[in-house]
Amino acid sequence: MSIETSPAVPIGESQIREAVERLAPWVHLTPVATSRTLDERAGASVFLKCENLQRVGAFKFRGAMNALLQLDDASKAAGVVTHSSGNHAQALALAGKLLGVPVTVVMPDTAPPIKQAATAGYGATIRLCEPTLAAREAAVADEIARKGLTLVHPFNDWNVIAGQATAAWELLDQVGPLDAVVVPVGGGGLLAGTALAVKARSPETLVIGVEPERADDARRSLASGRIEPSGDPQTIADGLRTSLGERPFAVISRQVDRIETASEAAIVDALRFLWERLKLVVEPSSAVVVAPLLERKLDLEGRRIGAVLSGGNVDLGPFFDALAARWL
Amino acid sequence: MSIETSPAVPIGESQIREAVERLAPWVHLTPVATSRTLDERAGASVFLKCENLQRVGAFKFRGAMNALLQLDDASKAAGVVTHSSGNHAQALALAGKLLGVPVTVVMPDTAPPIKQAATAGYGATIRLCEPTLAAREAAVADEIARKGLTLVHPFNDWNVIAGQATAAWELLDQVGPLDAVVVPVGGGGLLAGTALAVKARSPETLVIGVEPERADDARRSLASGRIEPSGDPQTIADGLRTSLGERPFAVISRQVDRIETASEAAIVDALRFLWERLKLVVEPSSAVVVAPLLERKLDLEGRRIGAVLSGGNVDLGPFFDALAARWL
Repeated sequence: MSIETSPAVPIGESQIREAVERLAPWVHLTPVATSRTLDERAGASVFLKCENLQRVGAFKFRGAMNALLQLDDASKAAGVVTHSSGNHAQALALAGKLLGVPVTVVMPDTAPPIKQAATAGYGATIRLCEPTLAAREAAVADEIARKGLTLVHPFNDWNVIAGQATAAWELLDQVGPLDAVVVPVGGGGLLAGTALAVKARSPETLVIGVEPERADDARRSLASGRIEPSGDPQTIADGLRTSLGERPFAVISRQVDRIETASEAAIVDALRFLWERLKLVVEPSSAVVVAPLLERKLDLEGRRIGAVLSGGNVDLGPFFDALAARWL
Repeated sequence: MSIETSPAVPIGESQIREAVERLAPWVHLTPVATSRTLDERAGASVFLKCENLQRVGAFKFRGAMNALLQLDDASKAAGVVTHSSGNHAQALALAGKLLGVPVTVVMPDTAPPIKQAATAGYGATIRLCEPTLAAREAAVADEIARKGLTLVHPFNDWNVIAGQATAAWELLDQVGPLDAVVVPVGGGGLLAGTALAVKARSPETLVIGVEPERADDARRSLASGRIEPSGDPQTIADGLRTSLGERPFAVISRQVDRIETASEAAIVDALRFLWERLKLVVEPSSAVVVAPLLERKLDLEGRRIGAVLSGGNVDLGPFFDALAARWL
């Protein structure tokens, strides 16, 4: 993988419009949830884009599908490879299944069996490697060299970013003008796509990324002007432990207004609020965007705020094991 | 409480239309969820009416509100009483708060503190009694005699039944004709209301009640032609442990096509499916209606089936305690 310094951004309004059209037959037009209680707590009008109800339970399906739909026939026939033990793995696996594109996913051999099984369940080939960056990159390079596979990176890929941009685009179509759009930031694909979509249509709308305090690499990167790696952050928001990619950062550094952080306690509070009061199964990475709303940390009282609930894939095994032990 | 033998049913299409109009400013028009995966598993087109997203998280708000809205001014000023440790308690408490009607709820002193607090949180007065039927009836009778309160029974009340009827009425407005409508049956208010609404508009549409195998009093009652009490059933579906009321039974015995049952294992499977795949927080009583769909027990392959997800109030305390212990 080459390191680019502030690469040019090849995505504008027309590329996002094309992605919206390209994806329309494939993605769910996810609903927007609102709640009187949330509005009261936040002191604002909040519109939650429910990407937990997207296919595979996460916005990641948009980017993966947008990337595969643009491969030429030879690349489709050869297949694609990625590295992920999260939602991108399942997203790419389903996209490949729908389009008849073979998918190989490189995962650390420490990835939970439930995630391996979910990805394999969509027909992808799982290649396990040691849980180091070097082993992962070697495995991916080997798949590309030996089999001619195309890499579909989880976030450092313009077609993936353009796909993720369609979530906020849809949200604006559904609810009209917004004063701010708030999304979680991990590798930066969703935040970069959101910034491109929102600023193309409404430059004055604030675009805000939120990340765990314990994984505040985006905040530090925006402050220093270069990508600050995230180390191995211990946060419940497992989707947000990644460092920023250079392509997302090229967008984020120019177009994102602010990075906010959420404590672990605030994330758990928001998660519980979303489950108990809104009856939405979301993953901790999604609760991260609701935390600063409940804490009123954004100084947006009385405004119209959009937020993307990025996914709903959470391991409910222990909860249901306890229920089964009690009742069965 | 007098025992009536097959009382006349004073609710027809016009009473339900009036209830729909009366409730419109107060209830949420809850969304209808659909799922490709559910349709594949069920072999049918399934439309889930999300009353877990109703105010207080359950359809019960419809009936409670419909009853309070029809009280005369003197009765409103005096206040109302009910007995419930479940969703009806919270529903009546919120309805009373919205209309300025004092609400007293008689609960067994064994009711979980979390449920007492939720009901008190809406401003209701809680009166605890010993956990016996005799103590409960004595407490309610005492409130009525001493304070002139009006009883709003959780299900044995025609205004409550007419209110519950509006959920299926709305569902038909939202999705068009259905071959069958499936709802859970506990005391019978929702099932009776659903039967009245559905049969008024579409006599050929099947109305099916589902209850836990371990609480199969409705099935036995429909078979014998009289109310068979339910004893003290041990089922995870805590909303469905009640015996049928005579007013609901007067409707159910005439207009319900069938009672189906679900094993505890099937209920837990359906609950997990709804949480994991549909990302909907529902309570076990709601999962009961999805269980026979997943098991294909209804012989409705290829048909259009509506089902009411009755509520979403489930104690997530242990789940979040475990998360907090791990991450905070």
